[in-house]
Amino acid sequence: MKVLILGGDGFCGWPTTLHMAARGHDVMIIDNLARRAADRELGCDSLTPIASLDHRLEAWKAEGHAPIAFESLDVARDYDSLVAVLRRFQPDAIVHFAEQRAAPFSMRSARHKRYTVDNNVNASHSVLCAMVEACPDAHLVHLGTMGVYGYGRTGGLEIPEGYIDATLSSAGETAQLEMLYPTDAGSIYHMTKTLDQLLFQFYAKNDALKITDLHQGIVWGTVTAETGSEGPFVNRFDYDGDYGTVLNRFLMQAAIGHPLTVHGTGGQTRAFIHIRDTVRCVELAILNPPARGERVRIMNQMTESHRIRDLAGIVSGMTGTPIHFMDNPRKEKAENDLRVSNSGLLHLGLKPTKLSDGLMQEVMDIAIRHSNRCDTSKIVANVKW
Amino acid sequence: MKVLILGGDGFCGWPTTLHMAARGHDVMIIDNLARRAADRELGCDSLTPIASLDHRLEAWKAEGHAPIAFESLDVARDYDSLVAVLRRFQPDAIVHFAEQRAAPFSMRSARHKRYTVDNNVNASHSVLCAMVEACPDAHLVHLGTMGVYGYGRTGGLEIPEGYIDATLSSAGETAQLEMLYPTDAGSIYHMTKTLDQLLFQFYAKNDALKITDLHQGIVWGTVTAETGSEGPFVNRFDYDGDYGTVLNRFLMQAAIGHPLTVHGTGGQTRAFIHIRDTVRCVELAILNPPARGERVRIMNQMTESHRIRDLAGIVSGMTGTPIHFMDNPRKEKAENDLRVSNSGLLHLGLKPTKLSDGLMQEVMDIAIRHSNRCDTSKIVANVKW
Repeated sequence: MKVLILGGDGFCGWPTTLHMAARGHDVMIIDNLARRAADRELGCDSLTPIASLDHRLEAWKAEGHAPIAFESLDVARDYDSLVAVLRRFQPDAIVHFAEQRAAPFSMRSARHKRYTVDNNVNASHSVLCAMVEACPDAHLVHLGTMGVYGYGRTGGLEIPEGYIDATLSSAGETAQLEMLYPTDAGSIYHMTKTLDQLLFQFYAKNDALKITDLHQGIVWGTVTAETGSEGPFVNRFDYDGDYGTVLNRFLMQAAIGHPLTVHGTGGQTRAFIHIRDTVRCVELAILNPPARGERVRIMNQMTESHRIRDLAGIVSGMTGTPIHFMDNPRKEKAENDLRVSNSGLLHLGLKPTKLSDGLMQEVMDIAIRHSNRCDTSKIVANVKW
Repeated sequence: MKVLILGGDGFCGWPTTLHMAARGHDVMIIDNLARRAADRELGCDSLTPIASLDHRLEAWKAEGHAPIAFESLDVARDYDSLVAVLRRFQPDAIVHFAEQRAAPFSMRSARHKRYTVDNNVNASHSVLCAMVEACPDAHLVHLGTMGVYGYGRTGGLEIPEGYIDATLSSAGETAQLEMLYPTDAGSIYHMTKTLDQLLFQFYAKNDALKITDLHQGIVWGTVTAETGSEGPFVNRFDYDGDYGTVLNRFLMQAAIGHPLTVHGTGGQTRAFIHIRDTVRCVELAILNPPARGERVRIMNQMTESHRIRDLAGIVSGMTGTPIHFMDNPRKEKAENDLRVSNSGLLHLGLKPTKLSDGLMQEVMDIAIRHSNRCDTSKIVANVKW
């Protein structure tokens, strides 16, 4: 298949690119390298020394693989170029990672809020418009977030995959329908994914575009079979307070002897997925497109749920690292339960990688190897909302 | 009160500006004159000869009224200027009309779709960001649309004011909540108003902004007490296939002897409001702000519902003009019922102006007076989706 990866240089995009290329698909990347620019803005860098995208792609080709094409363009802004690429490449699937994906970064300032909304909404909308013009039979696979559901708003109800059965009551009468789960975003970043959902609903209805939205949990791990843990294909490892994700941050903190930074009581329960499963889930979504005219297919891309303080306890137990409970910089419920249906991807063949499978040690090993690259001043989250 | 009108040169914005100024409020307009630019792009013009905004404002001052200030800027793009104006003017209320508001225009092409999403989302988001920075106690009054509700998705259930009681079912358990009515937009334009709703929910929750969203029906009439029906304050009268609204179009068609253009079977039932009631509703919203920390206040700004073919029948009966049933250019249900709660604005004191109050003749009189300005080639809607 011809697979176009928007944001193919990023933390999930790069391993997905290699995963699909290694399986013989004809892969093209579009990226404007905004993620690397954010690192420069924040004065941070990946803990792992990642190669430039050009170097990554040259090394891939040098190993005898079919080359991965790369177009440098801004999906949100360079619309005519995007249409031209789609017309020429005629992708079967377009994987859309081309969004600003850090909640703290999205809440830094008015500029960051406006950038996140502007970039994310216009990126998603440009892709949809361009598909209508250039490749209406292609399948859009979008990375959403479990955060669209909010946490705890519907009590302990199991979160279904995107749609929920509802009985609506008005003026003494009732009506039944299946509808999008009511959203409740916790940051500007998460909000943009709730906006994306409505864009997808419209284009599936009006233009019969084939769309899959994958509501992903918090990704942990950095290594897939193709990236390896060193060399030119190594994936980025974010540990800073903006882009670092919680479990990777705990493991990295343990690796360098920094107390584990738990926000609030750590009573937040969140959904998790290992990066190896991320790339497999995206592959499964690509291989199983909806038909034109079908509604948007929504699947929850996660494999297990954990309470944050329990994760900290596990890492502390493994390593002896103390836990530091800090004021929660975010506006969110102190404690919530979370039960999530993920049967869609399991039915398609996902074999979950769990915390218990020993891969936490792999993350720590990488962190130890590159601990000299760590700027400890970037560890504590400093964006409050 | 200090009232800032974003989009104060437009069809609803201008009469609202005068309505508030005539009642002694200190009114400022922000506008980028995009609506006049759209006329030029389409080769259309208001049926009424509207004065330039400068001329309108000079004439207002010349009549002895307190001057109305005007800042020419693009709310979606000129963020720093917007913040500076808010800091200086310190409005009590901001009325937000600064969005592209025609469904057919929003569906013309990829460029028009992208413009509508980009402009409307960024305009709303910039206002919210700027309020947080410059005037967090101000009250935002936004013009939404009845179109966010979709038509017929929940059977004949009465459409409540924004929120609806729901029982959600998942995995054999249920949960109760009051939630935003599930949206179902019929065009890119309407979709942008469903996105706005989610922006408002976030900023009311996260920043305790005071926000009222007025889901307006289809406006008819063009004259208020302040605009009059001629002279420098006259309001625009849109009759073209993009910006003209259905009842005004029927009345104008009857005035020049053009068949009444009914789309499909005319079985669509829609909500209506006279422009005199629009300005009164906005005033009532301004005078009754929610407190900080309250949820977004949503009210349905409409006074009566009619089936389109019934309206055509009324106008045809008044004038003898034949009805021409045309292929419906829009994707929408051929027939729908519509019952709407509008108790919020009635409780605040709205006295509805109905079709039966004789004002249809006023619209026809204006259309007859200016019939020499009509370009009949612009009457038929030519955007299909």
